[in-house]
Amino acid sequence: MSEALRLAEKALFTTSPNPRVGCVIVQDNEIVGRGFHEKAGESHAEVIALKEAGSQSEGSDVYVTLEPCSHKGKTPPCVDALIKAKVKKVFIAMQDPNPIVSGQGIQKLKDAHIEVELGVMEAQAQSLNMGFISRMTKQLPYVRAKLAVSLDGKTALYNGKSQWITGDAARADVQYWRASSCAIITGIGTVVHDNPKLSVRLYEHARQPLRVVVDSELNIPLEADILHEKPLLIAYANDKQKKLPQLKALGVECIQLDDSGKVDLTSLLKELAKREVNEVWIEAGEGLNGAFLKANLIDELMIYYAPVILGSEAKGMFTLPAYENLENKITTTLLDHRWVGQDLRMRFKLK
Amino acid sequence: MSEALRLAEKALFTTSPNPRVGCVIVQDNEIVGRGFHEKAGESHAEVIALKEAGSQSEGSDVYVTLEPCSHKGKTPPCVDALIKAKVKKVFIAMQDPNPIVSGQGIQKLKDAHIEVELGVMEAQAQSLNMGFISRMTKQLPYVRAKLAVSLDGKTALYNGKSQWITGDAARADVQYWRASSCAIITGIGTVVHDNPKLSVRLYEHARQPLRVVVDSELNIPLEADILHEKPLLIAYANDKQKKLPQLKALGVECIQLDDSGKVDLTSLLKELAKREVNEVWIEAGEGLNGAFLKANLIDELMIYYAPVILGSEAKGMFTLPAYENLENKITTTLLDHRWVGQDLRMRFKLK
Repeated sequence: MSEALRLAEKALFTTSPNPRVGCVIVQDNEIVGRGFHEKAGESHAEVIALKEAGSQSEGSDVYVTLEPCSHKGKTPPCVDALIKAKVKKVFIAMQDPNPIVSGQGIQKLKDAHIEVELGVMEAQAQSLNMGFISRMTKQLPYVRAKLAVSLDGKTALYNGKSQWITGDAARADVQYWRASSCAIITGIGTVVHDNPKLSVRLYEHARQPLRVVVDSELNIPLEADILHEKPLLIAYANDKQKKLPQLKALGVECIQLDDSGKVDLTSLLKELAKREVNEVWIEAGEGLNGAFLKANLIDELMIYYAPVILGSEAKGMFTLPAYENLENKITTTLLDHRWVGQDLRMRFKLK
Repeated sequence: MSEALRLAEKALFTTSPNPRVGCVIVQDNEIVGRGFHEKAGESHAEVIALKEAGSQSEGSDVYVTLEPCSHKGKTPPCVDALIKAKVKKVFIAMQDPNPIVSGQGIQKLKDAHIEVELGVMEAQAQSLNMGFISRMTKQLPYVRAKLAVSLDGKTALYNGKSQWITGDAARADVQYWRASSCAIITGIGTVVHDNPKLSVRLYEHARQPLRVVVDSELNIPLEADILHEKPLLIAYANDKQKKLPQLKALGVECIQLDDSGKVDLTSLLKELAKREVNEVWIEAGEGLNGAFLKANLIDELMIYYAPVILGSEAKGMFTLPAYENLENKITTTLLDHRWVGQDLRMRFKLK
């Protein structure tokens, strides 16, 4: 199964909106077939592995990281192919998270008298597809917020300067996470101060994620670099600056999601899920970070701590209301930590 | 030598203002004598080890973590005892940091035709006596500032509440560092908000460190618990609140160190060094932490990060001026990191 997971990972930057799936076929203690699902519309992992295994599929053990599909989508159901190939036993890391079809593939295999073992390395399989699972079960993408901060929790100087607090290695690591995300959300403050492209540069075969700018009053400067990035979506509450026609003339898609003058962040995430966005990566300042956190919309924090101090006048991580008691504090659970160059990266689960 | 260092560590909480020193005597590959310097005025490590070794000292190898003394202090010079015992060779981890006597003990041994090897596990020996070294070479104590913070670098809520951000294990760890310090410095803000005693509770045989309150205008409430702690020193700039007579009546020592209405922190540390304070432990809020940092008086930061978020309205770590460019940032070097319960403790060197 760990080989199947390794195969699934190969499609980390390409497979969305579909889940990442890997498959290994074993006959007489030898791997005779390997496959992974590379892109939506292309063959599923099981079909590729069965094809490689050929006649050796008969009586084989199959290891697959996700319950084989039983319904006809863009490709025929994998369950039928497994039955047709007369495999002996299927080891499945996790059930299909889609509640409507979950368990149906397993049932069909059992009905065809194929043994099934479910839950092998389940946690690892889930972590590969947090976004797909979230979208299927909650109609919301899995949301990671990235922050690059000083030891005293500062993300930028008082004047907005933030390039760079963390080192080269941390910034390269950010590229990896951008590449594996379906959408990157930023705020108008970051666009104004940093003029970022938020593009994936280090990974050639990766698709560019959907760039999303939260800009409640359409303050975006028309010369912002991000306006030339594709795909791009601007979420706004009202066209206070009367820029809508100019933005449309530039070919930029704008979507109005008004919540008393601010962009409704829950509606934004729901909209992204509808667009089959599995994983969202937030690179924003304290305002938008705080708003997402307050709305309880962040699943995971990824914080890079640089060994520097910026002091009290610099900008912080989360704009939040004043708490009266320490019981009000927001608690997290550490997922992992590692050194990335001189910086410490810590990941925390929020809910 | 590592056994000698282990012995020296036994006096971590008791030996100041003297350095922590351990000694091991080896004859025919067997340890025949062990000693460590427990308290100022009591026997030095070498003398205790020689006594235990008795006649087996002759022709032995001696391992000692600090250059043996050659001058008569409260006890006779150890060098003379080693020469009299006719030891063969002396391994010394580090020279005496006092520039006036440094090297004299080694020279005296060599003059008596005893072999000397210097520098064995030198770094470890130095780290045991950072405070003593600092006081001898710079006439300043070694200063550690401790901060217990949230992930977003907050040390207290807007209303001053800070009990507790970190967990039990981190707070027990703080007790260890308090116990090994000669003085604990805090600010008037912490006294007003937390009413701490800043005493050592977990280690019975430890002496209580000198508690120092930085209180520029003598705002300290007369009912503050810390006023009953001994020893105690209040550093002030001016008696704006006219409390000096009352504090003196309570038997509290007050020292005026005025720098334009604020306590002169450099003078304070020099005063502490004069009082033979080797290691200082700061437990303060953002104001005093920032002032020490700005004056470049902190040697080491010890930061406990709790996996919680307190938000933008909470209090930060260091009050510092606004920097215009990221080149102005204060840089640090990681010394070590470890998990203390749920919290992450990181130590950084500052200069």
